[in-house]
Amino acid sequence: MSGNTIGKLFTVTSFGESHGPAIGCIVDGCPPGLELSEADIQGELERRRPGKSRHTTQRREPDEVRILSGVFEGRTTGTPIGLLIENVDQRSKDYSTIADRFRPGHADYAYHMKYGFRDYRGGGRSSARETAMRVAAGAIAKKYLKERIGVTIRAYLAQLGPIRIDRVVWAEVDNNPFFCPDPDRVAELEAYMDALRKEGESIGARINVVATGVPPGWGEPIFDRLDAELAYALMSINAVKGVEIGGGFACVEAKGTEFRDEMSPQGFLSNHAGGILGGISSGQDIVAGIALKPTSSLRLPGRSVNLRGEAVEVITTGRHDPCVGIRATPIAEAMTALVLMDHYLRHRAQNPDVKKELTPVPSKAP
Amino acid sequence: MSGNTIGKLFTVTSFGESHGPAIGCIVDGCPPGLELSEADIQGELERRRPGKSRHTTQRREPDEVRILSGVFEGRTTGTPIGLLIENVDQRSKDYSTIADRFRPGHADYAYHMKYGFRDYRGGGRSSARETAMRVAAGAIAKKYLKERIGVTIRAYLAQLGPIRIDRVVWAEVDNNPFFCPDPDRVAELEAYMDALRKEGESIGARINVVATGVPPGWGEPIFDRLDAELAYALMSINAVKGVEIGGGFACVEAKGTEFRDEMSPQGFLSNHAGGILGGISSGQDIVAGIALKPTSSLRLPGRSVNLRGEAVEVITTGRHDPCVGIRATPIAEAMTALVLMDHYLRHRAQNPDVKKELTPVPSKAP
Amino acid sequence: MSGNTIGKLFTVTSFGESHGPAIGCIVDGCPPGLELSEADIQGELERRRPGKSRHTTQRREPDEVRILSGVFEGRTTGTPIGLLIENVDQRSKDYSTIADRFRPGHADYAYHMKYGFRDYRGGGRSSARETAMRVAAGAIAKKYLKERIGVTIRAYLAQLGPIRIDRVVWAEVDNNPFFCPDPDRVAELEAYMDALRKEGESIGARINVVATGVPPGWGEPIFDRLDAELAYALMSINAVKGVEIGGGFACVEAKGTEFRDEMSPQGFLSNHAGGILGGISSGQDIVAGIALKPTSSLRLPGRSVNLRGEAVEVITTGRHDPCVGIRATPIAEAMTALVLMDHYLRHRAQNPDVKKELTPVPSKAP
Amino acid sequence: MSGNTIGKLFTVTSFGESHGPAIGCIVDGCPPGLELSEADIQGELERRRPGKSRHTTQRREPDEVRILSGVFEGRTTGTPIGLLIENVDQRSKDYSTIADRFRPGHADYAYHMKYGFRDYRGGGRSSARETAMRVAAGAIAKKYLKERIGVTIRAYLAQLGPIRIDRVVWAEVDNNPFFCPDPDRVAELEAYMDALRKEGESIGARINVVATGVPPGWGEPIFDRLDAELAYALMSINAVKGVEIGGGFACVEAKGTEFRDEMSPQGFLSNHAGGILGGISSGQDIVAGIALKPTSSLRLPGRSVNLRGEAVEVITTGRHDPCVGIRATPIAEAMTALVLMDHYLRHRAQNPDVKKELTPVPSKAP
Repeated sequence: MSGNTIGKLFTVTSFGESHGPAIGCIVDGCPPGLELSEADIQGELERRRPGKSRHTTQRREPDEVRILSGVFEGRTTGTPIGLLIENVDQRSKDYSTIADRFRPGHADYAYHMKYGFRDYRGGGRSSARETAMRVAAGAIAKKYLKERIGVTIRAYLAQLGPIRIDRVVWAEVDNNPFFCPDPDRVAELEAYMDALRKEGESIGARINVVATGVPPGWGEPIFDRLDAELAYALMSINAVKGVEIGGGFACVEAKGTEFRDEMSPQGFLSNHAGGILGGISSGQDIVAGIALKPTSSLRLPGRSVNLRGEAVEVITTGRHDPCVGIRATPIAEAMTALVLMDHYLRHRAQNPDVKKELTPVPSKAP
Repeated sequence: MSGNTIGKLFTVTSFGESHGPAIGCIVDGCPPGLELSEADIQGELERRRPGKSRHTTQRREPDEVRILSGVFEGRTTGTPIGLLIENVDQRSKDYSTIADRFRPGHADYAYHMKYGFRDYRGGGRSSARETAMRVAAGAIAKKYLKERIGVTIRAYLAQLGPIRIDRVVWAEVDNNPFFCPDPDRVAELEAYMDALRKEGESIGARINVVATGVPPGWGEPIFDRLDAELAYALMSINAVKGVEIGGGFACVEAKGTEFRDEMSPQGFLSNHAGGILGGISSGQDIVAGIALKPTSSLRLPGRSVNLRGEAVEVITTGRHDPCVGIRATPIAEAMTALVLMDHYLRHRAQNPDVKKELTPVPSKAP
Repeated sequence: MSGNTIGKLFTVTSFGESHGPAIGCIVDGCPPGLELSEADIQGELERRRPGKSRHTTQRREPDEVRILSGVFEGRTTGTPIGLLIENVDQRSKDYSTIADRFRPGHADYAYHMKYGFRDYRGGGRSSARETAMRVAAGAIAKKYLKERIGVTIRAYLAQLGPIRIDRVVWAEVDNNPFFCPDPDRVAELEAYMDALRKEGESIGARINVVATGVPPGWGEPIFDRLDAELAYALMSINAVKGVEIGGGFACVEAKGTEFRDEMSPQGFLSNHAGGILGGISSGQDIVAGIALKPTSSLRLPGRSVNLRGEAVEVITTGRHDPCVGIRATPIAEAMTALVLMDHYLRHRAQNPDVKKELTPVPSKAP
Repeated sequence: MSGNTIGKLFTVTSFGESHGPAIGCIVDGCPPGLELSEADIQGELERRRPGKSRHTTQRREPDEVRILSGVFEGRTTGTPIGLLIENVDQRSKDYSTIADRFRPGHADYAYHMKYGFRDYRGGGRSSARETAMRVAAGAIAKKYLKERIGVTIRAYLAQLGPIRIDRVVWAEVDNNPFFCPDPDRVAELEAYMDALRKEGESIGARINVVATGVPPGWGEPIFDRLDAELAYALMSINAVKGVEIGGGFACVEAKGTEFRDEMSPQGFLSNHAGGILGGISSGQDIVAGIALKPTSSLRLPGRSVNLRGEAVEVITTGRHDPCVGIRATPIAEAMTALVLMDHYLRHRAQNPDVKKELTPVPSKAP
């Protein structure tokens, strides 16, 4: 298949362009009996929705999701769940000026070279619009993991440009437009973003995601490791340029005695591994971090070429996020949920009779 | 399948434990007509082979590969290529002391919790021994890409602990035991490693890999992006904790005008994207970096638990790499080759009639 | 994934229940540049549509398909094609009587035992309603194969109960409600069906499908053979109980000299193989036959059990096809098209440089 | 992948040519803890082994299998199981005469047109030699299903040319070289085969396979139905031209009241469905039949063409089975076991919490 499906047992196949009639996906492999309604999904979509504050794109995407199948009398039936969101606020004229040229830093050029042809309206398939379906599908996985297994998946803004957020107060993450876990830093972020918008610039960001309650033993050896598939799922998010698990790149300068996580009868004594050993969950918190580049859609002119290879100047006048990283927080949670749900089902399949000779040990912070 | 296969069209399925009779793999999907002999593969295995200098494990692994199928009269036939390496130097007694306990930072605990049972000899399936088959399979992909498409894949040691290597002289990479691209830094690396061994410590490292000559248009949108599958393949290497594409984590503090790669009729003016836009190759060099943690196998005692959950002290007396990152260089090349080969075949399949309306533009360094 | 996707490179993932709000599918992997409109698909849906004659169910399914993505300015873009059909004529009351019991010969019991729970309205996911999406997706594959490769895929009614149709006049197949290729037998079929309806009975049928113009070399050795995947695709159609390739079961009593297809410089001298040798197309017509059982939905009472395992009598009062085989003709064409399209793309991928040292030889009738 | 892997969760990937150094496979996805030794596999290989009677090819294939991984201290570990059989009795000269020509009815021509190149020795990859690995892998699935689930899979010769065997005495199947279930017919079969050999002819056969003890609920709706995947797996066996489930092609002339399987509190009253409803097991015996064509390898001359397209006469002087159907009996069991094992694991994964509101009802013979 040409890359629009993720997962082996809990699969999501998505379709849709930014300015087509609708976007949608099929979630196949959800076990039967899960209570599910549109409201369960709408709540997560709301967290991602643009236009909620002056700090994100002013595009209006009501993003009303319809469940078209797979749910009967309020419960999943085990058959595929079809999800659909009709596109509404499409200002194609915003994009008409870039039909014949390639926006620097965008997928325009690569799509054109791949397909020889592209839907240029709003980036078509390469638009961040597509991530709405990731969040919708992820909402189902999150709900299943939370209710059936007791796994909680949460993400937050860890850095925005030069501003690093070190204090994590989970309860605060959804109380500000930045998904910032430290309420004392919100004013600073607002000031920075306001200045950035005046400049016409955009900025990168770092998002951290943490999954709590994953039992030990999820993940497959060698290639389909839990960390490898997390890296795949997180790197597949628009604008992501780096992925770290646990200690991440800091391990380069670390020594063995510092980085290895020792154990005691009371549990692990540290979590540099980020909850994954040999590609398999250890029972500790699963911790990942991602870097998102600044959006390339700027009103500041950029040098580029057109379809005839001639030099042109590109100014993007559409409505864009000055920091795409902000709205990536629920997307990172969704992608993590999809990977964990898939590995939960794979673990069930491959290890029907496994005897646990040890009980999981409590998790320690890194 | 339980995670031992990589690739969709050019697939590698591997088997084998560190101390079993043999390790092997099946390479399925290699097009017919490629000239291939054991020598082509042996050369790459030689680069990975331990025991070549005092800076890597003294384990003896002759790693003599046999081609068991898929090659007739010196050319691939299009049928699966079976590769086999018999295990020879197995000192099981080295490992007998850890049969009933979990080495801190190792996969022992996770495997045990997953399967309830494990082959503890030398780490069994979780041993780095398994990477020999990655290199063997990757050698076939590297040869095909080099000879048929003109793609060159090279990696080097970019950092070892505190020592950063900034100058890259490709011709020097294979002239020292560290795959260090700057001959002037080799003495420094040797001194550092000698001190490290005396200490009984291990250290992390960073490897960079660069693929040159990849035409624009390889990769699939949305999930199976070229960068996402590279992240998956590279993160699946033992001890890797982080993956970056192009500018990587530096993008967090970058502004849009700095990070977007502008274009001119003469080509791209920078390569912060690392040769991938929207998950599809742009024709620029594909650039990735990985972080490898220090090995947890140390003679310095570590706190852990045994099968009964009791506190124990673990000392690893086996022969181990003080810096696993060093030998990861050919492995990173191999994994990159496997992903690119797979996407070359996928691209062929999905785009039979694509018209190139632009010719690729020359690549610029980041 | 739980079984709702077919194909490896040209994939179709479907969703939808008989009485849900809509059914749909995602076609992923269609190469870019194919001219495609809703009308292209609607034509095939029309052939399958019930209620066109008194010989098929009187259920009204306008089956108006919408293309939601993957097509821009009248051509496919290479991105996934989302297809949707809203359900309209749903008389749920027709089915209320069977909510607590299992219709003999239906999937009710098996679904219930699998999921512990089911959407009983009209058979839910197990309804033949689902085959509309097979026909819709197949229409895209048929069009591509016809226009780009010159492959024609046609099916016809070969037997209905005791009535065998031996003469094949292709031009006549769409001129009668039975897809009967011999116009002289249509009156006989009508009389038989009228009597059957009076009886309240149903009857089985045999459909033959023929693909002309498939070049030699499509198909993969060993498991994913062209005949094996055709058998899979055709057996997956509701009510199919048998699949034959070429000579089929007649080979049991045949001798080697009779059954082997000899060759001459002018071509093959027979086609008992049905156009497939060793799982790979030979360039001859690809010929398959399928057997469809009589529908189990009858107004004649049948013995069964209810949810409490008590004996009950079941009478199906819904509107059903007395011979489901009739409308299976376009479905068989669609499934054959999906398999051939997938293998065309797989062949392209696996054999980029294949030299044809022989030109295909003309095809002979069996 | 190019077709050499079967299964989604219990996967078998095979390699090897008839006259290469060895054949082998990797079984990935076997749950941990199954007691397994080479003897368990050797027993099944022995049943398939040629040269045991004058009625099968006199080729000597000791077929000694080695387990190279995945088993530790006599139990499976959950990691991939590597199996290897070295080739011994290779008389390449037997085949040298057909290097430049295509044996009628063989895969030679199709392979050549696909790959432009082939290993002609003994049919290379298309040789029935490959089925040894199917039997080896199937032995593991059979053992697991038998010991853990109580599923028994047995096959027998149902027809050889004109001779139909109707009486089934399971205990007799392995007591004669034909896998004939009726001891009273063995002499007749011997006489027929002796005459056939004198003639220089070959003959087709029918094999029936029956799986007992499969609980209701295995299989996936829509495409990956249990019957569809059985059809795929059985059709993938060399020389198979037809597959039937339950009543099979007899359903074409059957009426609804005859064919539907009614139910009572004591169980099903018939089994025309062959134990599968809507693609899902019903708890009844799973019954399938396959037709195998007569081998095309005959000493009687056949018309064909050579690499230059010139008319030639082909005489096959190698040692071949006059009835390939005979030795297909253990292969049909193996393929059925692989499909059932895969669906057992898939069922486990997809239905973690399913409540059985009915207990399976006893199975009735057709």
